[in-house]
Order: sequence, then C-alpha cells, then structure tokens
Amino acid sequence: MLVMLQFSKYQGLGNDFLLIDGREDQLTQQVINPDPAWVRKICDRHFGIGADGLILALPPRADGDLRMQIFNADGSLAEMCGNGIRCLTRFLADIEGDLCVQRWNIETLAGIICPVLQEDGQICVDMGTPFLDPESIPTTLTIGSAGLPQGECHLGSTSLHVAAVGMGNPHLIVPVEDLENIPFENWGQRLEKHHAFPAKTNVHFLKIHSPNQLEIRVWERGSGPTLACGTGACASLVATCLLGLSDDHAEVLLPGGVLQISWPGRRGSVFMTGPAEPIFDGVLTPLLSPSHAEVLPQDDQII
Amino acid sequence: MLVMLQFSKYQGLGNDFLLIDGREDQLTQQVINPDPAWVRKICDRHFGIGADGLILALPPRADGDLRMQIFNADGSLAEMCGNGIRCLTRFLADIEGDLCVQRWNIETLAGIICPVLQEDGQICVDMGTPFLDPESIPTTLTIGSAGLPQGECHLGSTSLHVAAVGMGNPHLIVPVEDLENIPFENWGQRLEKHHAFPAKTNVHFLKIHSPNQLEIRVWERGSGPTLACGTGACASLVATCLLGLSDDHAEVLLPGGVLQISWPGRRGSVFMTGPAEPIFDGVLTPLLSPSHAEVLPQDDQII
Repeated sequence: MLVMLQFSKYQGLGNDFLLIDGREDQLTQQVINPDPAWVRKICDRHFGIGADGLILALPPRADGDLRMQIFNADGSLAEMCGNGIRCLTRFLADIEGDLCVQRWNIETLAGIICPVLQEDGQICVDMGTPFLDPESIPTTLTIGSAGLPQGECHLGSTSLHVAAVGMGNPHLIVPVEDLENIPFENWGQRLEKHHAFPAKTNVHFLKIHSPNQLEIRVWERGSGPTLACGTGACASLVATCLLGLSDDHAEVLLPGGVLQISWPGRRGSVFMTGPAEPIFDGVLTPLLSPSHAEVLPQDDQII
Repeated sequence: MLVMLQFSKYQGLGNDFLLIDGREDQLTQQVINPDPAWVRKICDRHFGIGADGLILALPPRADGDLRMQIFNADGSLAEMCGNGIRCLTRFLADIEGDLCVQRWNIETLAGIICPVLQEDGQICVDMGTPFLDPESIPTTLTIGSAGLPQGECHLGSTSLHVAAVGMGNPHLIVPVEDLENIPFENWGQRLEKHHAFPAKTNVHFLKIHSPNQLEIRVWERGSGPTLACGTGACASLVATCLLGLSDDHAEVLLPGGVLQISWPGRRGSVFMTGPAEPIFDGVLTPLLSPSHAEVLPQDDQII
C-alpha cells in the first residue's frame, strides 16, 4: 500500500527538518515508528528530500497536547533537539494559522517540553537545569573557584584554559581572543576526544564581545563543525556567567544565526529563544512514500 | 510582489535539481533569469530547498519545443548537463502524464539537444562527438598509437598510464586494477592540476570488468568526488573503445548508479542512456519565493 505523504520543511539556524502532522490523519499515522532505512532515504540530500532529521507530530500518550518523535538523518531516534522543537512549534502555529503568543505541552523522550511562541515569532524553550558536577557531565576536570569544572588542556605546546558544563550532553568551553585565527579543525577534533572527557565532548570556541553578547564556533561531538548547537549556546552562557565574564542573559552569535540565552538568577532552568522558519510544503512521490511493509506497526515496542 | 512558486525535485544518479515549468504560467515566467542570490538561496541545503541546481522550462526562442535554462547551485548559468537534461525530460513526461516513447527538441546554450524517453523509462541523450585532438581537450599529451592522447603521469615514484578525451570539457582516464585501494583523494587532486592539462581536468579512475562493463570513480574538476559525471562516462567509453579494451557500447557503473554509453561504429555522437526520478513536488513559502525586485526583466540581455 502506497501513501501520498504531505510534509513541510522548516529550519532553525540552518538546522533543517522534515515535519509530518500525524495527529489525526489516518494515512500519515502509518508513519509512526518508521523504518530507519526509509528515514535515511528521505533525509538523503541527493536521492531524497534532504534534511538533518525528521519530526513527527503525533497524538499525546498522557497529558500533553501532542507527542514529538524526532529522528536523526541516519534513522536513529533522538531524545530532543532545541532547533528541532522550535521548528515543530512554528509548524504547529502555521497549521493553526494563528501566530499570536501560544504554548504547547509537548511529550518528548526527554520529558514534557513547553515551547512558547512569542509575539515577535521567536520561540522560547526551557532547556532544563545545567549540570555542573564533573561526574554528570562527565569530565575529569575538577570544580574550580567559579563553581564549575575548570582546567587546562594541553595540545602540544599550546595550553588552553577551559571550562565544562553539561546540558544533558557534555560541553567544553574554550575562550579565545580571535575566533578566525585558531586552528579550528585541528583543535576541535583533538579536544572532542580529550582524555578529560571519557564520553567525548562538544567543543565551543568562545569570543566575548560584551557581557551581553557572546560568539561561538561549534565543533559537535560526532559531527564536526555545525551551524548551530542550542545546548552548546546554553552551556556557553552558563560558563561565562559563572566565570564573571557575562550577565545571566546574552545573545549568542553562531554560524547559522543568533540565539538569546538566559539563566535567570543563575539557578534553575536555562531558556533559549530563537527563530524557526518554513521553507516549503511538499508531497512525496509514490516512489519515496513509505510502503505499508516499511512501517513497523508495533508502536509501543519502540518508545 | 510575492509569488507562490510550484516546483518539483528530480534526481539522476544522485545529481538533484529543482524544476520549474515556466512555459505558460504568467507567474512562473517571472523567474526567467532569476537573481543568482535567489538561486543560491533556494539551492542551499540547510536554509533553502537544497539541490545541485535549478532548471527552468521556458517557451522556445526558435524551432525547439521548449528552452532550458540551467543554473548551478552557486547561481551561475550552466551550458548543459547530462544528468540535468534527463531530469527535465522525465519532468516533461510526468507533466504530460504519458510515459510512452517521446522525444523533445530542447534549446540549450550548447545548441538543440534531443533527449528521448524510452519505453523502460530511461532517457537517451545525444552527447555529441568526442574531441581527440590535444589542442581541443586541451592537453599536452600527444596522440598515441590508438589515435587518442596518451602518456604517463608521474606522481612521486608512481607512474600512471593515462589517456585523455574531450567532451566539451577535459577528461583524464586512468585505468587501475583495484578501484578501492588507490589513494583516491591524493591522486585526484594532484591529477586535476597536472601540468599536462592547462585548463585542469576531470579525473576518472577506471576498472574494466568486461568489454561491456566499466566502473569509474569520479573526481570532478572544481568539485572533487561526485556521484556521477555523464560526460566522464562517455569519455571513459571512448577511451577504452579506442584502446581496444571495450566494445563500442558498455554499461558504466558510477557511485550514484549506472549509465549505458554507446558510440556506434566508433564515430560521430556518443549516446548516454540513464535514469531520472521524481522525488517530490513542492510549493515555496512566500518568504523564499522570488520578489518582483529580485527578478531581472531584461531576458534578452543575458542569453
């Protein structure tokens, strides 16, 4: 059985996703728990539609307004993604045709997330509380005077002052004087695998323009250079805030755009505010639509 | 003025294009000679739709059935592209809803091209006559006993027996025993700039499986490794045919798929037969649609 599948593509800071509304339509609900091979096929940038991932809006299981399933381009299931949930939020607002202030309770594998669509079209997401104890990050760096893991990383004859913050995933923050004239690739791949981070780490080279403006170049664990990393922007603000180098709110410039990060009172949740934009709406040709055989019907066995 | 723009994405051997039918619709004709910045925007794989290029089907200027305008992802105008014209051919057939044998006379910057849609859905394109004289390719290699430029290229202590063929662009053919165990990147980038090719060259490492089956790994001039190169597949068949290593027709295996290449009687035109597949149909959101201001109205000044 072939399904003609409607989808939309959205991007947040250049992180792009295919979105499918499977909340009511009986046909599109058939894509729940899709075959990873099919996800890889439609995310392929030459043979498929092309995207960093696939996001499904599904009926809620519990008290949420809906449930989000998010897949990486390699077909694996992701827990959560800051850029992705902003795209889903804007997608929901566009479907409802109402761009006034709105909030949704979205069930994710990382718990209920409540993104808020603001009047200016930006979306604010509660990214949770940062981890500062070394074991949770995890890192072998030890807590310094500023209350977060700090230390020096040696790369040959170069010694870098660094700090570490966890946001559910590990982040290494490296303040530098000049973002352009660093050996970005070399340092990035060596720091990602630095022995102080037993589970490897995301690496962010950071330039402080002012107490309310930071700029980072992102080296993502397992991916290398990327256009944006929401958790990395949050971790950077937490680190500079504790080190006395920034306020508790700042705009963070990334290669793909700008995020507003705030950590009110330096405790509790970090909030990320940023854009998400529609690119186009599409209909998959039958050749690429999931056949019934490609869909796993045992929804409950996976999540 | 904003235009809601309908488009389709097709791919041939993984070379993917956005196609817009501007033959009749007054609105879509406004995209004739689009602003290169707009082409870059919609071809961008993260912030736009994502594609290797944009193809417009336009009303004919002379005796053709239609005129093709093809743009690279960087916004520059391309003369012709074998994979691209196969995609356009399949697009035209899909619009007409009739997949029986059909042919179109398509006006391109490389003259009239007459692709033929076969019963099996494959598209056959006359790729023109190969150039074998060194000046036309251009190369400083000299004509060998087989009637085409041949010689040895030295890379350090390695000496490679090579041949050269022009198909409007230069191609260097390097027969090897084992396609997997060659230093592909290293040899590719050094041969691309080898002093025997004053305008640089495309490089094809070639394995002969049988007189009717070749396999190539493609290093494209200016692009590096690519999934497919139609002119390179033609050049490879011409070279092996003249060197007595293949028949005058063979299937050529490329990373992105298979092309059938024939050079009937070893003279005149080379014919390339291969697939093109629809991926999806879409509608651009107003944000990405070309505004009137972005469109150059002086059609005749460009082509």
